[in-house]
Amino acid sequence: MTLKRSWVESANAPQTDFPLNNLPYGVFSEASGGKRCGVAIGDQILDVAGMEAQGLIDFGGALQTGAWNTFMEKGSQAWASLRTTLTEMLAEGSSGQDSLAALMVPMADARLHMPFFVTEFTDFYASRNHATNVGTMFRGPENALPPNWLHIPIGYNGRASSVVIDGTDIIRPHGQLKGPNDTVPRFAPSARFDFELEMGAIVGRASDGPISVDQAFENIFGYVILNDWSARDIQAWEYQPLGPFQAKATATSISPWIVTAAALEPFRVSTPEREFDLLPHLQDTGPMLYDIDLEVGLAPEGQAETVIARTNYREMYYSSAQQLAHHTTSGCPMRVGDLLGSGTISGPEKQSRGALLELAWGGKEPITLDGGEDRSFLHDGDTLTLRGAAVGDGFRVGFGACAGKLLPAKV
Amino acid sequence: MTLKRSWVESANAPQTDFPLNNLPYGVFSEASGGKRCGVAIGDQILDVAGMEAQGLIDFGGALQTGAWNTFMEKGSQAWASLRTTLTEMLAEGSSGQDSLAALMVPMADARLHMPFFVTEFTDFYASRNHATNVGTMFRGPENALPPNWLHIPIGYNGRASSVVIDGTDIIRPHGQLKGPNDTVPRFAPSARFDFELEMGAIVGRASDGPISVDQAFENIFGYVILNDWSARDIQAWEYQPLGPFQAKATATSISPWIVTAAALEPFRVSTPEREFDLLPHLQDTGPMLYDIDLEVGLAPEGQAETVIARTNYREMYYSSAQQLAHHTTSGCPMRVGDLLGSGTISGPEKQSRGALLELAWGGKEPITLDGGEDRSFLHDGDTLTLRGAAVGDGFRVGFGACAGKLLPAKV
Repeated sequence: MTLKRSWVESANAPQTDFPLNNLPYGVFSEASGGKRCGVAIGDQILDVAGMEAQGLIDFGGALQTGAWNTFMEKGSQAWASLRTTLTEMLAEGSSGQDSLAALMVPMADARLHMPFFVTEFTDFYASRNHATNVGTMFRGPENALPPNWLHIPIGYNGRASSVVIDGTDIIRPHGQLKGPNDTVPRFAPSARFDFELEMGAIVGRASDGPISVDQAFENIFGYVILNDWSARDIQAWEYQPLGPFQAKATATSISPWIVTAAALEPFRVSTPEREFDLLPHLQDTGPMLYDIDLEVGLAPEGQAETVIARTNYREMYYSSAQQLAHHTTSGCPMRVGDLLGSGTISGPEKQSRGALLELAWGGKEPITLDGGEDRSFLHDGDTLTLRGAAVGDGFRVGFGACAGKLLPAKV
Repeated sequence: MTLKRSWVESANAPQTDFPLNNLPYGVFSEASGGKRCGVAIGDQILDVAGMEAQGLIDFGGALQTGAWNTFMEKGSQAWASLRTTLTEMLAEGSSGQDSLAALMVPMADARLHMPFFVTEFTDFYASRNHATNVGTMFRGPENALPPNWLHIPIGYNGRASSVVIDGTDIIRPHGQLKGPNDTVPRFAPSARFDFELEMGAIVGRASDGPISVDQAFENIFGYVILNDWSARDIQAWEYQPLGPFQAKATATSISPWIVTAAALEPFRVSTPEREFDLLPHLQDTGPMLYDIDLEVGLAPEGQAETVIARTNYREMYYSSAQQLAHHTTSGCPMRVGDLLGSGTISGPEKQSRGALLELAWGGKEPITLDGGEDRSFLHDGDTLTLRGAAVGDGFRVGFGACAGKLLPAKV
């Protein structure tokens, strides 16, 4: 877990998200020209579409498609091959510098796009602290954890069409609202609009029947940071009996770079000890979570940002591999590009909670920002920025930002 | 509402599902050759991919793609144009016979495939009788209808990857089960596997923000019959608090022909009178349901079929247009190929219930098949066949069959 040095000098800086150890996959465009597959290295993007066009690598044109799905479909040998080649050619002292220098695009000059086509999106509910906090607010402390929660990773199907990339503005949604004291519902902008700090796992290999936890772990190509924007008041009225629907359909933001499972390999950690053993088909077979520091910044319109939460992905009760294995138990086919949200990641401390609903306890304990303003839920003009990195010795495998600004509801 | 006569003689028979009035869109292949877009007429399939290849029609190659999505994307003028052209060329006395006769493929010689790529799948819960029956079983008669039910069309996101075509075998799923008297859950094959009789509405035009009920009605390209296979025991354990997940992910079967909204136009009927007015954004603006007779046949392995339910799509409380409009309230983007299940269609009589759960009242009142066997839930080897047609004067606009056979769980 030490820094691998690169001839791209900016990749050796301790604060960069993108050292040679990382090599995350994204899609970018320049002022002119279309979408191209690229790899982040320091403050540069290596144009791997250009590499393939020049014959330096060959994945059958998979890197010419403006998305990483086709490359993922090539399978794990291709995944390993590209990573090995890039690691060698970008290493300090490599002769790769001669051929690759002309294929570097400064990140500052590029626009980033969705790194992959989201086939379907599933969201889980897998942090014990989050489930306990939310359950306590909704059902009281005795009934906080639903009876199934310690036995299966509870999840629901979300909406792939509303997944957007970092930097996309979010419009405050309308919805049907009915407070506990209202006699009839009304149609109005959500007044309790919130974020949820999550990791997203990307399925890189299709399956057509039940798969084991081990197989599921192998099928996950990589991870992004994910913000599952949530309208709590819409959810409260709609979610019984069939679960959240429009409350979660406005948008889900993801960070722009797919950090591969290979890059995260040195940071694997185990799930927590369990009160009940999981049934055999869901049991851990090794450390399948990752030690990833996460934080949430909130900046009101025209003001500086306050970091309102810090937590870690290792707080989850279920790994993405367990969630993916559970997802297939009924025979559900999974496809390349399926995105699995981890569920909100909340730690045990008040400052480690991954949603305003928990941080401000349903509005009862508003948080105070550095500029003096209070927040129970998001205000128009607020920009939320999620960040995360697995931290090594003098380097970090980072995800880039997952930011979004909340715009007022449309009239 | 009288029969339009065609020079394809089998299309004039009163019992055919596919008279000239219908012209539904499917995808077929012959013993050799790939998938082709086709139109059902009597017992024949008109090879419209071949028509386009020969220059008889021109939709920019949309009919060469082996799916109807690209054609749908061409928009409502293209939809009307193709229907008008086919109606003219297939009419009795038309000179179209000269050019089209060679493009006819006997249905008996063709294999049918998914008529469109399912982008995302959403399932609703919109028959009052069904919701009341199920609610009574789960929560007692006083709490049968959830409080939101009369105000919004309750729905949840389903799984597009598990949508399959008529004739696809269904494997009984495994899942986590826990009966009310069990202390711990176990992993076993579902013992309460069921069907749900629904209609599926296909979105033919994308939208990127809230749309009105009128716009939603215009955006629906056509309909199929849909069987939302359901594992009731998996659902009972998993569905709180986030809704059904693996219980509904084994498979959803659809009939092979997209019956267009244009073909169903003469059969429009209104939703029922309402106890509470809907909020303005969901109000009916005209008759947007259809008078479609539906039936369910169940054939045990090697035995004759018993028709176990007969109902009608007009029993719904919400139209697909209302469901689609609701789906967009939060800003959720909809895409061409999105499939919306109506929800189980149950009428007021016992024999008009659209699921075994209701027909056999949760196992308390098993139904008896003609051959003498009882059924509370499906047995291995059972073949379920859903059928439907809008019935005119001496003709029917039919959907073909939506059948599936239940195979034993894998060991």
